[in-house]
Amino acid sequence: MAKIRKMKLGAFIHGVGGHIAGWRHPEAQPDASIDFGFYTRQAQRAEAGKFDFVFIADGLFINEKSIPHFLNRFEPLTILSALAAVTSRIGLVGTVSTSYSEPFTVSRQLASLDHISGGRAGWNVVTSPLEGSALNYGKTIDEHPDHAKRYRIAAEYLQVAKGLWDSWEDDAFIRDKETGVFFDPKKMHALHHKGEFFSVQGPLNISRSRQGHPVIFQAGSSEAGKSFAAQSADAIFTGHVTLADARQFYQDVKSRAEAAGRNPDELLILPGIAPIIGQTEEEAEQKYQELANLVSVEQALAYLGRYYDHHDFSVYPLDEPFPDLGDVGKNSFQSTTERIKRDAKKNNLTLRQVALQEATPRPLFMGTPQKVADMAQEWFEERGADGFIVSSSIPHALHDFIEQVVPLLQERGLFRTEYEADTLRGHLGLPFPENRYTAKARQALV
Amino acid sequence: MAKIRKMKLGAFIHGVGGHIAGWRHPEAQPDASIDFGFYTRQAQRAEAGKFDFVFIADGLFINEKSIPHFLNRFEPLTILSALAAVTSRIGLVGTVSTSYSEPFTVSRQLASLDHISGGRAGWNVVTSPLEGSALNYGKTIDEHPDHAKRYRIAAEYLQVAKGLWDSWEDDAFIRDKETGVFFDPKKMHALHHKGEFFSVQGPLNISRSRQGHPVIFQAGSSEAGKSFAAQSADAIFTGHVTLADARQFYQDVKSRAEAAGRNPDELLILPGIAPIIGQTEEEAEQKYQELANLVSVEQALAYLGRYYDHHDFSVYPLDEPFPDLGDVGKNSFQSTTERIKRDAKKNNLTLRQVALQEATPRPLFMGTPQKVADMAQEWFEERGADGFIVSSSIPHALHDFIEQVVPLLQERGLFRTEYEADTLRGHLGLPFPENRYTAKARQALV
Repeated sequence: MAKIRKMKLGAFIHGVGGHIAGWRHPEAQPDASIDFGFYTRQAQRAEAGKFDFVFIADGLFINEKSIPHFLNRFEPLTILSALAAVTSRIGLVGTVSTSYSEPFTVSRQLASLDHISGGRAGWNVVTSPLEGSALNYGKTIDEHPDHAKRYRIAAEYLQVAKGLWDSWEDDAFIRDKETGVFFDPKKMHALHHKGEFFSVQGPLNISRSRQGHPVIFQAGSSEAGKSFAAQSADAIFTGHVTLADARQFYQDVKSRAEAAGRNPDELLILPGIAPIIGQTEEEAEQKYQELANLVSVEQALAYLGRYYDHHDFSVYPLDEPFPDLGDVGKNSFQSTTERIKRDAKKNNLTLRQVALQEATPRPLFMGTPQKVADMAQEWFEERGADGFIVSSSIPHALHDFIEQVVPLLQERGLFRTEYEADTLRGHLGLPFPENRYTAKARQALV
Repeated sequence: MAKIRKMKLGAFIHGVGGHIAGWRHPEAQPDASIDFGFYTRQAQRAEAGKFDFVFIADGLFINEKSIPHFLNRFEPLTILSALAAVTSRIGLVGTVSTSYSEPFTVSRQLASLDHISGGRAGWNVVTSPLEGSALNYGKTIDEHPDHAKRYRIAAEYLQVAKGLWDSWEDDAFIRDKETGVFFDPKKMHALHHKGEFFSVQGPLNISRSRQGHPVIFQAGSSEAGKSFAAQSADAIFTGHVTLADARQFYQDVKSRAEAAGRNPDELLILPGIAPIIGQTEEEAEQKYQELANLVSVEQALAYLGRYYDHHDFSVYPLDEPFPDLGDVGKNSFQSTTERIKRDAKKNNLTLRQVALQEATPRPLFMGTPQKVADMAQEWFEERGADGFIVSSSIPHALHDFIEQVVPLLQERGLFRTEYEADTLRGHLGLPFPENRYTAKARQALV
């Protein structure tokens, strides 16, 4: 019997949120980004809603123009480890950059989180879009690597991480008090990796965790990002403005996975959505306007600048066509900056229009619970998505989604009503990665 | 009124323990090093005993000769973050190396832990004694830095960390929904550090935490280690075999702190002890022998080798004088290897004797609860120690200390019966470090 395809849901927890002025909302808790109680409540609520995972994003550079949440927030591995102790089933996914860290350290920390949580760790592999990051890691890394190089580093980094996670076969630790044998030395493996960017001997000083390898997420939608994901990721955190775009992306990435010799069902496509839900369409629209009205045009320009290496947009006339920027931002959030330029040209938008629209994009998933559930179902069934990563642009949006949309998805048989597994791999229906050395030994026996 | 001096106590949690064969003990839980439940119970027990902190050690290189606990254990920052969620008052101190990490990342993770725990984070700054560490961090660091260079790196690293922790003044975040002012830009400070080893712009993307700076521990007893601690640490984790040695060390380090312009009471000297407690002297001796008998001479040689860069001692005759090793191990655990050589020569010991003695050193703090309490009191009052970091060489040793020795120390007025504070700095009686920019602004007003 074929397994019925079910929707996957992640809860993007990000304190005061990704919106530049969301913290000013009357119902917002303005110190949420740095309040462990807030993170605990959100994670526990998502777990009560049977979500697959919580998701914590990250960044490595700020300046005075950064949005409030970015200025003062928890570091992902520490907050996820703490959340492991106050939850029991939900997956714990966080962003860690491969451009500004060491594979031995990060593999260990993720394996440690996987052990602490009993098999619920996930890693969103990013290459750090912000050029400023290099300024905080000088001497070790003196120049922000260009886009292509960042992905070459990421590919090798992940190869090292996966190798280190195989340092110990699953049954390497014997711990026989009688014989005094603590481990089987034949099941301990040094990696001896020597590559372009890393030279790592191993073995890792932590055993293989419940999931074998933590689940790999990837969040870039550029060509290099898609190829990397198709080769190496278990899930992609993406973003689209139309179902047609989403379907095209879905098709593209699944084909790439298949071409790479993988089962395309084992690479999940999860667009991010920031739903605004009202009991009526009018109420939803009113909620959206309330949010948009919190932003000044100056703030909107600063926010836009962030995608373009903190470019100063205040020097251009506000009500003339979106300026020609040349190469500015090319080495940063590449797919986003390209989209903005394309849309501005296509729709003949002024700088003011672009800035306000980017500061408070009208959410696609907006309206009554019924309407939002219908859209989610359509995207899922039409193969634009295998599920969604749900964030809150207004306070309570995640809560509204859990309380009002999830029950509809459950009634329709699209989403679980109870956890069937207790690992993140289990929730996502992903296979357990066999240890490479165990596989080799098994094949040698055949 | 002068504050009455009280003893400080830390609980060293290390799974199956630092003893090579402790895991074989009939009462040992052989997977304790990787069981979050075990760590939770130990931390909660230490908190019930009103301990100042738990302590988690670390290392960055293993091979097949490493002791069981080192092969497979949690990474400190992740396990401490998880323990933050299951405790409420006890301090959370962990080892992180300055030779194989980046100050921007580690400062952030420690600040994040301090926020999550409400001001309970401590950092044991180590420079990584194991030469093999470089093999796991190749390309970035291709050669294990020598002892002196490691301490130069550590000094600059800590300077950067402390600077980053001052990125935001304590009242920088205003979060006024009415005016839309989230923070005061005058109270956000980039560090612009440019030194020999690091170039870090800042600011850190997390606000100043409850303790201002996490508490700094240091654990090296070499000349360079003592100087570093006297300049920069709040506490020293040390180890001595006689009270006379302890007093000399205490006097030495406190004088250095004073010479550096510091209040010597604000640098705590905390020797590590691994007590064995019995209802009678005989019972304690029996417990010690039971532990010593778990070790074979081959295991003892391998254990000894670890201090000397995994030097192979099996090539030497067992019952002849301890071999002349020349410079082997000089760039590793310097103070330990020197002590071993010195003792072997002085007492005319054979290799077998040295190896078995190092594998199961007879604990100094051994005997009835009364005797152990008397010794602790003597060391404390005679200024050999400001307190102790208590570890378990046999299972239940920490528990025995908490149940049987702590009440005696409390009766004698030497140790607290209730927490008076809720931060680690508060427990340890350490001052709150004023933000450097706040201090400058305050001084400018005078």
